[in-house]
Amino acid sequence: MLDKVLDDISHRRYNPLNGSWLLVSPHRTKRPWQGQQEGASKTKLPEYDPECYLCPGNKRAQGDSNPHYKHTFAFVNDYSAVKEDQQEYHPEVSKDDAASLLLQAQPVTGRCYVLTFSAKHDTTLADMTAQEILPVIQTWSRIYASHLSPSHPLQAQAAQVLRDVPKNPDGEVEPPKKQLRYMQIFENKGAAMGCSNPHPHCQVWTTSELPQEPGTEMVQMSKYKQANGRHLLEDYVKLEMEKKERIVWQNDAFLIVCPWWAVWPFEVLVIAKRHVRALVDLADDERIQFADAIQEVTRRYDNLFETNFPYSSGLHQAPLDCTEEEADTCWFHMHFYPPLLRSATVRKFLVGYEMMAEPQRDITPEQAAARLRDCGGELFRKSLQ
Amino acid sequence: MLDKVLDDISHRRYNPLNGSWLLVSPHRTKRPWQGQQEGASKTKLPEYDPECYLCPGNKRAQGDSNPHYKHTFAFVNDYSAVKEDQQEYHPEVSKDDAASLLLQAQPVTGRCYVLTFSAKHDTTLADMTAQEILPVIQTWSRIYASHLSPSHPLQAQAAQVLRDVPKNPDGEVEPPKKQLRYMQIFENKGAAMGCSNPHPHCQVWTTSELPQEPGTEMVQMSKYKQANGRHLLEDYVKLEMEKKERIVWQNDAFLIVCPWWAVWPFEVLVIAKRHVRALVDLADDERIQFADAIQEVTRRYDNLFETNFPYSSGLHQAPLDCTEEEADTCWFHMHFYPPLLRSATVRKFLVGYEMMAEPQRDITPEQAAARLRDCGGELFRKSLQ
Ligand SMILES: O=P(O)(O)O[C@H]1O[C@H](CO)[C@@H](O)[C@H](O)[C@H]1O
Ligand SMILES: O=P(O)(O)O[C@H]1O[C@H](CO)[C@@H](O)[C@H](O)[C@H]1O
Repeated sequence: MLDKVLDDISHRRYNPLNGSWLLVSPHRTKRPWQGQQEGASKTKLPEYDPECYLCPGNKRAQGDSNPHYKHTFAFVNDYSAVKEDQQEYHPEVSKDDAASLLLQAQPVTGRCYVLTFSAKHDTTLADMTAQEILPVIQTWSRIYASHLSPSHPLQAQAAQVLRDVPKNPDGEVEPPKKQLRYMQIFENKGAAMGCSNPHPHCQVWTTSELPQEPGTEMVQMSKYKQANGRHLLEDYVKLEMEKKERIVWQNDAFLIVCPWWAVWPFEVLVIAKRHVRALVDLADDERIQFADAIQEVTRRYDNLFETNFPYSSGLHQAPLDCTEEEADTCWFHMHFYPPLLRSATVRKFLVGYEMMAEPQRDITPEQAAARLRDCGGELFRKSLQ
Repeated sequence: MLDKVLDDISHRRYNPLNGSWLLVSPHRTKRPWQGQQEGASKTKLPEYDPECYLCPGNKRAQGDSNPHYKHTFAFVNDYSAVKEDQQEYHPEVSKDDAASLLLQAQPVTGRCYVLTFSAKHDTTLADMTAQEILPVIQTWSRIYASHLSPSHPLQAQAAQVLRDVPKNPDGEVEPPKKQLRYMQIFENKGAAMGCSNPHPHCQVWTTSELPQEPGTEMVQMSKYKQANGRHLLEDYVKLEMEKKERIVWQNDAFLIVCPWWAVWPFEVLVIAKRHVRALVDLADDERIQFADAIQEVTRRYDNLFETNFPYSSGLHQAPLDCTEEEADTCWFHMHFYPPLLRSATVRKFLVGYEMMAEPQRDITPEQAAARLRDCGGELFRKSLQ
């Protein structure tokens, strides 16, 4: 059982996944709020918006037209953060020079995709059934599989995915010629999370370098494995299933928790229960169970404050190009970082103290989990109709 | 000279202060923005607001009244994130148990202060002269000095500050009986940075533990010192003064740069040019030079987009309780993290990719520094009057 003292006192918790600490101040939610209010969900959106660059059949910024797709559709971002071709850059390296220590740069190439979740402009993952979310997971699995390096330890699983998982009838993206290192699949949902188009979609950024966060997680997971002989998230799943205090929902394949080290008020971690290294390790029934898990998180989020709940989410899995040892270190999981704290309009700001000193949260993860456990009913929008 | 290639290509840069990487995409500012707009500066504020809990003479949430102070005024936050007294918590530690690795917590006690910069409700640091900012720095110096541990290596300097630096005639805070470890001074300015009261003020959170960020910086600086025999920021100041590409402004005591590793579009670092370990190391003329530097940063920020520029800022310096070696590792500096990117209403969102993979920025620090160098004239509000 949770030491009840932690419900009342200020304390720090350790995040073993990234090796850093955060401050928990459970008593602090009582403070009044007179600051910025988030815009609550606006006017009803149309099912098709002729101005939207993601709706089927519409024209995009650089002149291409979207096909009249049914479920998902992926294309190269017209304003990619990384490009496939660019001028070469070879930093000078001289060992004794302070510049080579303090002014370090590495070139990064890659490709960024946008991927729609549905043809309907006015839907969200929370509105979709698990069966409707399944094509998204199939597309994620196929795009990941098609971008794996030829010598990747999961190449056999990838081949099977590309053979057996239904192809998107509306077309698929071809991987670039140059092998890339990592694929980051993520969603920004809601204006509060910098999303500029409500049409349901995610992004897929592939890069020649392993980014900071998954890189740090892999180091932490590998250290844990070496010291303890078991996987960090294997032990964590087991612990959470014993303690039960932070579980939001689970099925046979996935556990949804507000992690012990959650920074955002209603932060959630979806963790594979067995050792899944990447999307291509998922069996048919696990893909549908993953769709179920995503449905459960997003519906509960919307129900919590009866709003279109903003969040950023992302998958962490094995790099596109890696050794067997690196792949074995990875344990498939999905993070959800939602900003709302008290209502549809009052968010948590991770600002001054959080930026300069360490992240600070106002309710405990156990309190957040209890609230998310309790709002699993029908999507509030449906019961209003 | 900066390798001009970095002006055009995507690349990563390394932050030696915290040991992490960020992605720079210089070509990406061309993308159109249809997302959230920040509220631009509202209606004119009154010089005195009877509803403001920070204005002189007013009543606060828990019933206390502010004195009729002249410049600055410090009091214990009515909704502190940490408290001095709380129930004890002794985590069980068993070496073989996964729970002791994955569910780690530490109790944290401390005290949080609020400190006003001026009696005037409608002013900001950018509106104040360096002479008017000086009392703020004097108060910071005295509050830091009065909270140092009795055996602190900077105790002699602290005693001198408490003797020679003018006392706030409107009263000062007494340190708590229990010695604390770290004092984080920071400001959240503007609604976009979670600030709920425009009355100019900062916060001072003191804690029994060394927080994550200054802790990481100290580890990084100490490693650098051991490997290279010089201070990380000593070398960095020298480099930037040679290269000149990222300098915004300087005087004899302080250098203002957009650091090589800046994450926020117009992020700025104010660095002491000589080895200042903490506020109490500053000589009289250095305190006024520090006030000058803060004036230069905040005025340029407001001039850049002709707005009341939001930011979070914070000081990093020696812990309140530390060894001589720890104190010597520290090099006094101040971070400014401002969110605006393109105009008074369009900010940068550090969301999906930034949270899941690594921070990404759209203009180079060199471009940001050039723009801040060029807007050092009179405060735009003054020239409008
Ligand atoms: O203490 P304040 O100003 O009410 O609160 C603000 O700053 C704090 C410290 O950075 C944050 O934890 C809060 O989220 C933010 O709204
Ligand atoms: O690519 P988008 O959706 O236009 O942009 C959004 O997501 C990106 C990736 O997290 C961020 O870098 C941007 O700041 C944000 O506005």
